[in-house]
Amino acid sequence: MTSEPAADRAEWGAPGSPHRTREEQVLDRIDRVRRRKAVVKEERITLAHGSGGRATQTLIQAVFLEEFGNPLLAPLEDGATLRLGDARTAFTTDSFVVSPLFFPGGDIGDLAVNGTVNDLAMCGARPGYLAAGFILEEGFLVADLRRIVASMAAAAAAAGVSIVTGDTKVVQRGKADGCYITTTGVGVVERPVELSASGARPGDAVIVSGPMGDHGAAIMVARGEFDLESPIVSDTAPLHGIVSALLDALPGHVRTLRDATRGGVATILNEVAAASRVAVVVEEKALPVRPEVTGVCELLGIDPLYVACEGRFVAVVDGAHAGRALEALRRHPLGAGAAIVGTIRDDPPGLVLLRTAFGGTRIVDVLVGDPLPRIC
Amino acid sequence: MTSEPAADRAEWGAPGSPHRTREEQVLDRIDRVRRRKAVVKEERITLAHGSGGRATQTLIQAVFLEEFGNPLLAPLEDGATLRLGDARTAFTTDSFVVSPLFFPGGDIGDLAVNGTVNDLAMCGARPGYLAAGFILEEGFLVADLRRIVASMAAAAAAAGVSIVTGDTKVVQRGKADGCYITTTGVGVVERPVELSASGARPGDAVIVSGPMGDHGAAIMVARGEFDLESPIVSDTAPLHGIVSALLDALPGHVRTLRDATRGGVATILNEVAAASRVAVVVEEKALPVRPEVTGVCELLGIDPLYVACEGRFVAVVDGAHAGRALEALRRHPLGAGAAIVGTIRDDPPGLVLLRTAFGGTRIVDVLVGDPLPRIC
Repeated sequence: MTSEPAADRAEWGAPGSPHRTREEQVLDRIDRVRRRKAVVKEERITLAHGSGGRATQTLIQAVFLEEFGNPLLAPLEDGATLRLGDARTAFTTDSFVVSPLFFPGGDIGDLAVNGTVNDLAMCGARPGYLAAGFILEEGFLVADLRRIVASMAAAAAAAGVSIVTGDTKVVQRGKADGCYITTTGVGVVERPVELSASGARPGDAVIVSGPMGDHGAAIMVARGEFDLESPIVSDTAPLHGIVSALLDALPGHVRTLRDATRGGVATILNEVAAASRVAVVVEEKALPVRPEVTGVCELLGIDPLYVACEGRFVAVVDGAHAGRALEALRRHPLGAGAAIVGTIRDDPPGLVLLRTAFGGTRIVDVLVGDPLPRIC
Repeated sequence: MTSEPAADRAEWGAPGSPHRTREEQVLDRIDRVRRRKAVVKEERITLAHGSGGRATQTLIQAVFLEEFGNPLLAPLEDGATLRLGDARTAFTTDSFVVSPLFFPGGDIGDLAVNGTVNDLAMCGARPGYLAAGFILEEGFLVADLRRIVASMAAAAAAAGVSIVTGDTKVVQRGKADGCYITTTGVGVVERPVELSASGARPGDAVIVSGPMGDHGAAIMVARGEFDLESPIVSDTAPLHGIVSALLDALPGHVRTLRDATRGGVATILNEVAAASRVAVVVEEKALPVRPEVTGVCELLGIDPLYVACEGRFVAVVDGAHAGRALEALRRHPLGAGAAIVGTIRDDPPGLVLLRTAFGGTRIVDVLVGDPLPRIC
């Protein structure tokens, strides 16, 4: 497991101004590290490059943004918002390589549909149409494919979207792992919203829409590597309905929406802190986690803050309207477990701080390795 | 090699009405076979399911259309055309699994960009924005990824499109084959065109925009399995410019546009014959093929009609305007080798007939196996 924060690896004893406190020196150093131009030091791709954490961010900055750089891609939101004719359109893609393909609560099919529906919802869009690209391994059971496709169709119907175009490729036995699916979605942003990870302001409230880590914990148990039995099921679900309820309840007061998939809630909070140049202060006691998920995570030495959800999101809203936001979320079946978990402050910018149940404070950093590869 | 036509496998001696000629009986039988409900008989996915030929069509009909069925997907064009706000938008996706990743004339990167740009162009759209999903294998060289991404950026710039959103997943060593890329594109259909494989009418002319099979032949040689050396390079190129020139020259007279990728020109012609319920009659002498491509194909026992292009398309146009279409194409650098290769007739509906250089006629059927897996 390599979920320890990167800051632990920094040279804490580096010299600084004698007039600054030790804490200030540490924060300065973290800030300098974060501002450095991203460089991929590895010669070869590692699983960490797919974690959603620091290695992924470095790869995106140093390779993809370096080459593709344009104003629409640069914000690195869950999707791009662009103009097509007079329509403000959200556009998002995700490849799914989850293992196993079938797990308690879902399969790669509904995961692929809900994941893309949710990225559209996080842009404030009404999900409209999906494209699906399949990469199949020679020898894959047609019955399994049929089951996955049926599950995609059911998820699409439930979310009110149509799968309108697709592609199928087959690679030789051993050149893939059964079935990979890439879903891409388009939807129209009908409300005058400006949602962005860079929109958080001091005084805002941070809300999590429900228990954290159900999907990741379900996958870990389903892999059977740990000889665990547990009733945990994936939380995979389409979030556009509950997002709509929130936006209706708080017109103009929702700053940021991000679904907490790879890298979990901790990764989203770090993205908000970095993009908005604010501090995110989280109360450990307020974080919603099911006891059975806590149990699995403790056994495996993983912090639930880093474990993927597939039906939960983080919302940053105007602090003055946090109570109303929570009410709106809790009235929706997918938000019964919603909780206000923290606040936005101006200092120290770029950091996520956790106030622990024991009264201490620790930095919650971005994942360095990948404790849970192929979670989605 | 299994590129023989399916008709060869039908039971030619089946009993029929004694009053019908043998040819009529054969055509009746082919028609019955084609009208049968599609059923996937294989228990497991085979390479043929990725060929673009008969097995792919059966899989799409029996699994994907069966579950996803909706009016936008049903026509199975290169992309779906849908309404987003007031914009008529084309939407298309393709997964790329080409092997090798680098080949004479291109790599998986520019192939992935051009492939999706071309599918938008075939819908009559101005390509606008692309999404890119990467599935990387643990251990893949970062330098190779960088080269591919740079090639995508150059292709996007050349085609005037922006890559605005993306995703990166990493799978364990041995669970993929270096790098797979899924590109999805959106673009606005600005002209009042109605392009469709079902739009061909008797009297129309069939045009191929340039030499056939360059891409497939280049890949075959690049694989090095056949110990061939050849100067053939892939024809991967963005086709929206030449398509625009054609549509400007023949407003209202272009019926069908399809880029001839997997399965080559023969597959496209079969799709047109089936969707339009017409006969496509092709003159072998008129088919443009480079001598070096003919040479490679002869050595490998493959008909160039079935070999993939990545920078050529088939156009069906009003026969009265065929000359003007050819002139417009030939004026464009990518259309210097364009040729009128055949005509649309009403009978026998659903079939592609080739008039050979020796004066005979043979049926050009859909591919049954896949002579060239992972060509794109």
